[in-house]
Amino acid sequence: MEAPDRKIEPTPDTAIVWREDRLWLLDQRYLPAAADYLELSSAAATADAIRNMVVRGAPAIGVTAAYGVVLAGRDAFASAASEWKQRIGPGLEKLRQSRPTAVNLFWALDRMQSLIDDLPEAENPEAALLAEAVVIHEEDVAANRGMGALGASLIDGPTGVITHCNAGALATGGYGTALGVIRSAHAAGLIDQVFADETRPWLQGSRLTAWELLQDGIPVTLLADGAAASRMSQGGIGWIIVGSDRIAANGDVANKIGTYGLAVAAKFHGVKVMVAAPTSTIDMQAASGEDIPIEVRDGDELLSCGDKRIGAEGAGVWNPVFDVTPAGLVDAIVTEKGVVHSPNAKKMRELMEK
Amino acid sequence: MEAPDRKIEPTPDTAIVWREDRLWLLDQRYLPAAADYLELSSAAATADAIRNMVVRGAPAIGVTAAYGVVLAGRDAFASAASEWKQRIGPGLEKLRQSRPTAVNLFWALDRMQSLIDDLPEAENPEAALLAEAVVIHEEDVAANRGMGALGASLIDGPTGVITHCNAGALATGGYGTALGVIRSAHAAGLIDQVFADETRPWLQGSRLTAWELLQDGIPVTLLADGAAASRMSQGGIGWIIVGSDRIAANGDVANKIGTYGLAVAAKFHGVKVMVAAPTSTIDMQAASGEDIPIEVRDGDELLSCGDKRIGAEGAGVWNPVFDVTPAGLVDAIVTEKGVVHSPNAKKMRELMEK
Repeated sequence: MEAPDRKIEPTPDTAIVWREDRLWLLDQRYLPAAADYLELSSAAATADAIRNMVVRGAPAIGVTAAYGVVLAGRDAFASAASEWKQRIGPGLEKLRQSRPTAVNLFWALDRMQSLIDDLPEAENPEAALLAEAVVIHEEDVAANRGMGALGASLIDGPTGVITHCNAGALATGGYGTALGVIRSAHAAGLIDQVFADETRPWLQGSRLTAWELLQDGIPVTLLADGAAASRMSQGGIGWIIVGSDRIAANGDVANKIGTYGLAVAAKFHGVKVMVAAPTSTIDMQAASGEDIPIEVRDGDELLSCGDKRIGAEGAGVWNPVFDVTPAGLVDAIVTEKGVVHSPNAKKMRELMEK
Repeated sequence: MEAPDRKIEPTPDTAIVWREDRLWLLDQRYLPAAADYLELSSAAATADAIRNMVVRGAPAIGVTAAYGVVLAGRDAFASAASEWKQRIGPGLEKLRQSRPTAVNLFWALDRMQSLIDDLPEAENPEAALLAEAVVIHEEDVAANRGMGALGASLIDGPTGVITHCNAGALATGGYGTALGVIRSAHAAGLIDQVFADETRPWLQGSRLTAWELLQDGIPVTLLADGAAASRMSQGGIGWIIVGSDRIAANGDVANKIGTYGLAVAAKFHGVKVMVAAPTSTIDMQAASGEDIPIEVRDGDELLSCGDKRIGAEGAGVWNPVFDVTPAGLVDAIVTEKGVVHSPNAKKMRELMEK
């Protein structure tokens, strides 16, 4: 165990850290102005951190939840060693209720539950749970590196790309999905310009994506979300590259609000759309995008900026956090198992059976 | 003259007021949190107010510039009565340089220049200039009321509409262009839901459009700009209704950044696009949208929110204030002279020859 007073260096790849028997999350609500860690020692606190967007991004939520299960298991065993498998239930449920759309959350919890089912009764599960959480974390990073190479191979560059929200190291176990592809393609000289939508209302683009890419020395130009179509019309944009929070069995893609409009504009301009996501993001139980629950968050997220009220009092707000891009607008889904071109239900099934 | 201590009641229709020999502008940069007036007594100060977006919106800029010419004329006459027509030149030039895209600015200055050319030498021009500015102001309001009725007649409601930026009373001499149509159609029961894009980076939608509509008792629901396409996909939206900063001779429409992407999404969803603008917004010298100069403003407008820095240090920004929607994406241009359906160069010429 490392000394408690040794600080974690805040980098995109160390946004989720297990240290000193606790979970440390880089608080993404305040990046880039502040880069502070939140220390979590219970599943309930972990669930709150997910709900309140201390950590966000589907794969990162999955990894975080897996560590949350470690904390839940330890607390359950401490409270009643012989009954820990029952006592862990409420902690798991809190994690499950934290956010509705990113399926990686449920995927990670189900995977941890499978392990729990196999573990002996009345033995301390912490080490086994931690080992599995670390595997989930490491597999995610490995998947991202694989996707980075696969996605880059699709790009006939050098060309410009536009990304939306943050699908980077901060949104995953590390390296990133969409930003993983951009990292790999940029290193290979296939990308000459990266544009990032600022991504209202949470500004993940201007706050997180820009911070992350600049730390890697990759120049990035921010756009108002409404400027992306205009930028496409000027040419030089080969691909839209985004992540996903849940992909349905037919290839429909739920992702950050604004992705759908971006994909519509891409189709209009002949720009291709790439979705980079690990197979843990694919929900074969959701037949289409209509089966994906779309979280609607508080209107104050749009009416305020930081502590400042900006919108008129009395205005209604529709603040869905995600939208669904139909498979027909997606040119390629890039996963660690391979690439699905022009996705449909048959191709998605074949991918998952690999 | 009214008593100097009598306050102007801040309403959308009193955003531009001539009183006590001076020009009073409701400072739109701080609405709705504060509703204070800026008092202007020179053309240079008026040009600064336009540049700094104390007042914005193409017709409002035109009206403001006309009053600015009154101030320029008075100062010129005061400095050298016999030479006022020469002395007024620098003031007019400052106004002309204030912002590049809204053609109503140049239209109003040209109209005031025509009057100047006809006025006698060595006589105080203030009363004549003021009378003309007032006519420009009143004609704009009248045009908006006419467009309101014409635009409403196109709507087969009740239906939902989406507007972008603020094309309301605040953006004009009063009543509004797009919001004039929405006011008229709402009063006639033809609109059942008004959605307003928040409109980054200046948030004219959440700050100004919402404030203005709520004052009229018209409920409004705000959307992140990126949510508009998603809202269209859910149905119930009959029209996108927007204003314009300059319309080219072929019907291409320059308007607030984001309008183009909205129009692309509208086409994809079978939603119609209406542009409401007085003929003072039509620039027959611009053959197409390519001839319209598009203002690019400072990147800090995107990187900051109020006094708060939000974007990552070192990120580039592309911050065009307007985009061009090609005529092919526009279903109707509504002017005070009539409606142009599916605009093209021939129809626009016929309109202007009416």
